[in-house]
This record gives sequence, structure tokens and C-alpha cells, in this order.
Amino acid sequence: MLKDNIVIVGCGRLGANLANAMSDDGKSVVVIDSNKESFRKLSPSYGGLTITGDAMELSVLAEAEIENAGAVVTVTNNDNTNIMVAQLAKELFHINEVVARLYDPDRECVYQEFGIRTICPAVLSTKEIDKLLDVWDGDEAV
Amino acid sequence: MLKDNIVIVGCGRLGANLANAMSDDGKSVVVIDSNKESFRKLSPSYGGLTITGDAMELSVLAEAEIENAGAVVTVTNNDNTNIMVAQLAKELFHINEVVARLYDPDRECVYQEFGIRTICPAVLSTKEIDKLLDVWDGDEAV
Repeated sequence: MLKDNIVIVGCGRLGANLANAMSDDGKSVVVIDSNKESFRKLSPSYGGLTITGDAMELSVLAEAEIENAGAVVTVTNNDNTNIMVAQLAKELFHINEVVARLYDPDRECVYQEFGIRTICPAVLSTKEIDKLLDVWDGDEAV
Repeated sequence: MLKDNIVIVGCGRLGANLANAMSDDGKSVVVIDSNKESFRKLSPSYGGLTITGDAMELSVLAEAEIENAGAVVTVTNNDNTNIMVAQLAKELFHINEVVARLYDPDRECVYQEFGIRTICPAVLSTKEIDKLLDVWDGDEAV
């Protein structure tokens, strides 16, 4: 990774989990959330920054120094916000690595048109459950 | 898998996605949800059964013939419900293969004590994002 700093938009369960993991991994992390209560989900060992604000506002993205980010990850609870901010990061700030979480798997094609990588929890979880049940096909040791 | 039938509790995004995948895979699927509108998320090709009812009621689980299930997967939007129904499946109906989705990763230990496998979307998604960003470490071809 050329730049070791990452901007995470949304500090829900996934955003906080990711921020903690990246921070523990020695990366410079900035998390943005419109509700400052959300930051309570960050672990005591979290060493990054937090910014309270709406990531749809350019001033907030500027405060996070998004233009210098090595990666931007959008994981608010709103698919539309995740799409919009991911597009801003890609098109306006020319961030190469943009990952967006989307709840609705049918919208994945929208993102990919813009070169944005997506993850869909329902799809990931389905694969994981399928894997757990496949293991049980051959292995009854529970 | 000795028995090829699966009971899925909760027809949200994950439940529906899983039901569709398992049904397409040729398994006998029963999905339980307290809100019959939820079943609209099932695909037109879904070949399983749907039961409208509260899976915390034994009569509903009996209607789903849970005692004959090869696997039970609890994926409602409520971690407590998922724990309770998973425990019922394991302890009362002696189902070997029980998988529960939990939003709160801190509760994972509770399940494992009961021999219930768990998946946590935030943990899975964090791993996946980490993987996507790791790829970018060595491969700039986006």
C-alpha cells in the first residue's frame, strides 16, 4: 500500500470493527460518523481520529484529508450514502481503492460500473453458512 | 448431509438469500417468519415451504417438522431470538447442525458453549475488506 492511511465512513458495528482492526494493524485511520455516540463502539486501544459530521458534505471529507487517503471504505447503514460517498472518493478525489458495503445485492452492478469494490453482508454470510454446512457433510465432529 | 432438509428461521435479506441458494441447490427448505410480507424476498424459483409464525412457539417449529431437519439456521434480526431458537433446536430437538447469525460479536462465547456455530456479519465483512485491501498492496490493477 503506498499510503497507509484509511478513511472509514460510518461507525456502526462494521465501521467500528474495521477501524479497530486497521488501527491495531498499525494503519492511520480516520472514522467519520454523523452521530458522535457511535464512536463509543471503538475499542480503548483505537489510535485513530474521529470526525463527527455528514460525509456527504465536502468540508467534512476535506477535514478527514480524504485526498491523501490510501483507501476509502463506506459502511454507513444507508446504501445510497455509501454509493454517493464512494463515488465522490473515486471521481472527485481520485482514490484508487474504494470499498462500499451494500445491503441490497441487486445494486452491486451500479457500483462496479464506477470501479468501486463492494461487499454485501448477506452474500458473504450465505457463503459462510454454506461452507459450515458443507463441512458437516463430511465431518460429524461437532 | 444425512438429511437434506433445512429449516431457516427469519426471512430477512440473509434468510431469503440463503433459502434461495439452498433451494436452487436442490435442498428441501422451510423458512419461518412472523411477517408474511418477508417472503416476497424469496425468488420466483424458490421451491421450498414458508410458514408464517413465531419460531419461539413450539407449535410453529413442529409445523416446520424441525425434528426431522438436517440443519437449522437462525437468522432473524434479533440476536436473542436467534440464541433461543438455536438452543431449542439443539437441546430439545437434538439437531446436530445449528448455525446462528449474531450481530453482536461479543456474544459469540454464549453460543459456543452450547455447541452452536455462529456467524457474525461485521466480522466476516471486516475480513473481506481487509482481503480486498491486501490485494491492492501487491496489485494495482483496478
